[in-house]
Amino acid sequence: GWLASSGTRGTIVSTSLPDSLTPVPQASPLAKASTVMNAEYQFKKPPARSLAIPAGKWLKLDEGAPDGRLFPKDVLARAYRSALYRAARENRLQYRDPRGSIMLREEVAGMLKAQRGLMVTAENICITRGSQMGIFMAARILIQPGDAVLVEALTYEPAVAAFKSCGAKIVSVKLDKHGVDVEDIERQCRLNRVRAIFLTPHHQFPTTVALRPDRRLRLLELARQFAFAVIEDDYDHEYHFQSQPLLPMASYAPERIIYVGSLSKLLLPALRIGYVCAPLQVIESIAHEVTVLDSMGNTLTEDAVAELIGTGEVRRHVRKMTQVYAQRRDAFAKALDEELTDMVDFEVPDGGLAFWIRFRKLADLDRIEKNAPDLGLQFAASRSFITRPGATRGLRIGFASLSERDARAALKALRQAAKP
Amino acid sequence: GWLASSGTRGTIVSTSLPDSLTPVPQASPLAKASTVMNAEYQFKKPPARSLAIPAGKWLKLDEGAPDGRLFPKDVLARAYRSALYRAARENRLQYRDPRGSIMLREEVAGMLKAQRGLMVTAENICITRGSQMGIFMAARILIQPGDAVLVEALTYEPAVAAFKSCGAKIVSVKLDKHGVDVEDIERQCRLNRVRAIFLTPHHQFPTTVALRPDRRLRLLELARQFAFAVIEDDYDHEYHFQSQPLLPMASYAPERIIYVGSLSKLLLPALRIGYVCAPLQVIESIAHEVTVLDSMGNTLTEDAVAELIGTGEVRRHVRKMTQVYAQRRDAFAKALDEELTDMVDFEVPDGGLAFWIRFRKLADLDRIEKNAPDLGLQFAASRSFITRPGATRGLRIGFASLSERDARAALKALRQAAKP
Repeated sequence: GWLASSGTRGTIVSTSLPDSLTPVPQASPLAKASTVMNAEYQFKKPPARSLAIPAGKWLKLDEGAPDGRLFPKDVLARAYRSALYRAARENRLQYRDPRGSIMLREEVAGMLKAQRGLMVTAENICITRGSQMGIFMAARILIQPGDAVLVEALTYEPAVAAFKSCGAKIVSVKLDKHGVDVEDIERQCRLNRVRAIFLTPHHQFPTTVALRPDRRLRLLELARQFAFAVIEDDYDHEYHFQSQPLLPMASYAPERIIYVGSLSKLLLPALRIGYVCAPLQVIESIAHEVTVLDSMGNTLTEDAVAELIGTGEVRRHVRKMTQVYAQRRDAFAKALDEELTDMVDFEVPDGGLAFWIRFRKLADLDRIEKNAPDLGLQFAASRSFITRPGATRGLRIGFASLSERDARAALKALRQAAKP
Repeated sequence: GWLASSGTRGTIVSTSLPDSLTPVPQASPLAKASTVMNAEYQFKKPPARSLAIPAGKWLKLDEGAPDGRLFPKDVLARAYRSALYRAARENRLQYRDPRGSIMLREEVAGMLKAQRGLMVTAENICITRGSQMGIFMAARILIQPGDAVLVEALTYEPAVAAFKSCGAKIVSVKLDKHGVDVEDIERQCRLNRVRAIFLTPHHQFPTTVALRPDRRLRLLELARQFAFAVIEDDYDHEYHFQSQPLLPMASYAPERIIYVGSLSKLLLPALRIGYVCAPLQVIESIAHEVTVLDSMGNTLTEDAVAELIGTGEVRRHVRKMTQVYAQRRDAFAKALDEELTDMVDFEVPDGGLAFWIRFRKLADLDRIEKNAPDLGLQFAASRSFITRPGATRGLRIGFASLSERDARAALKALRQAAKP
């Protein structure tokens, strides 16, 4: 009497077992819906404030995402189709190299070499599922519990969460309008066992400014002196409107740096293609972490993206989008001036896809954040950027994913939310 | 003199800085190829023996993968295309819910309800990048450093690696031909602070046997008594050739279980779609871990797979494949008998996509493993399955991804490798 057939459902353990055993539910319904059921084991609870922005009811303001609607769908669908046929023909749809598709690794290495001055080959590249996974991988191979990781006074919260989750002690360093304060880095290095610093030197997150060249060099000196690694998150290298950008720090000090990049801004966030670029042995170590974490990436997506880079589609798309986004940036600045006059300060960003908006009176910001949900407005909380008391609170608002009309509507909504 | 233009490469830090600063390379070449460069920071080294099987020169024997060549490519390419157009139309190609596409979560919940007796809704599902990520997520939310995790004497090495990487103390429990030894579990629970057990009750990995019903119930009693969680990895539920399978343990004790599944065997490993099914609050906790780890999955792939489940394509494909694989299983058994006569013992598996092959003389196995690389043969090392000294070493060889001819060739190669 141990087994009972349940038709096409397969065989279930019989319900006629002695009472002393775990009660077994009837075949239909087998159990009450487990959505309302509590787990009877201990597990780590999530933080009260979610890191992720939930899907919007009305208008979601992102932190600098591209406009996915403008991506040429037919081109991407064709690339998926040809990747699928090629991979099936070559029997490459099985479990594969944890570092990712060799085609994509070669294209990424080629792109970094030609456009960003990184003298690397495919052996220096590990493909990740977006840049967050790159940051998490870097944290996993660098941090032992108790090691200090330096982050800027204002920074990218999911990165901080990744370091914390590996047992890091988070040490906040000062920041000004030229980027991170290198003297404060030195001070913190004398006080802590610093293993790494997390930086976004190209466009500081969230403030959008570029790290000044002299500070970059001083930072690398300190990295050498105190033997820490630099995690350089170059999350939106491509979009610059004013002038040629500085090259990544990884181009002149690759031995000090784990360089994290993403194709989310070049293509679509939904594709989840990022990469880590680092010395060979570091990549080997990261590859091992990938096997523990998720085995490998989606071969079809990786091959399709490789094709889009190889055929120049990505370059063409970026060129086109740079014009669109430059217009949107200017229109957003104008709308900010008109809609939030006297309330905010901001600089028009040289590059990247977001504005950093400070409020002259914090009370205005507080009211906006309090009233936003009722108005159907969603954006990253000003407190999410802050790693030390007293750091300037502000809003980081992406301008690229919004049409001019939507941007205007969003800013009008912000204005409305600011009303007492 | 801080900046120097480098044409389309952007601006690099000038090479004319004082010597005391970090030397800056010439614009072309900017640095020596960093493949040969060493990282000048400390990082965790990978283990000497890689977990991943590298791509094969000649013939790779997997541990039970489906045959990706038989998947209808046109159907998948069309599903990707329609997912892409739908997502673009609905502006869903941005950063989204870390739990995954709601369409896919609903389809997976429906499938688990209809076919596996799990009374769940989409709220109980978090999509992962393959089942390894599901296991890793479970480890992340269950384990505090020093907690014991029970694993079977023979088990899936990447799971063990995931637990270890979260600081777990791995405790090996005995195993026989009916699955895990529940008396040994009780003994270990009295000796250790056990937080979880990792099990593959449907088809024990690597030995392929189903866990006997009485042991399942006793195990759940122990889970209640000692308050540990059961991580039930149901990695290839679908393929059964003999009889209706037992339902997952999660169907009758969902409050005790984190159920990890995968669509890799139903569809293609390369798509990287797995899922975790658990009580709502556990899913919320896992969703937070996803935001730290890789933010979210690939929306296009998730929506495309949802469509393939919804339209019945997956069911049709599995029905067809079950016939193909049943034939391949029988042919493989015959070939094993003929090619490795007198050398091996094995049972023909009732379900799943692999054989567990024991060797009468370990010397034969040792020679095979020693000679395999020279013959271009690749397979998971027999030691990779073992978590305690003295556990039976054997080979787990997938039969589903090989044509009958290739299977025969592989077994002839194994025979050749066994020669002194």
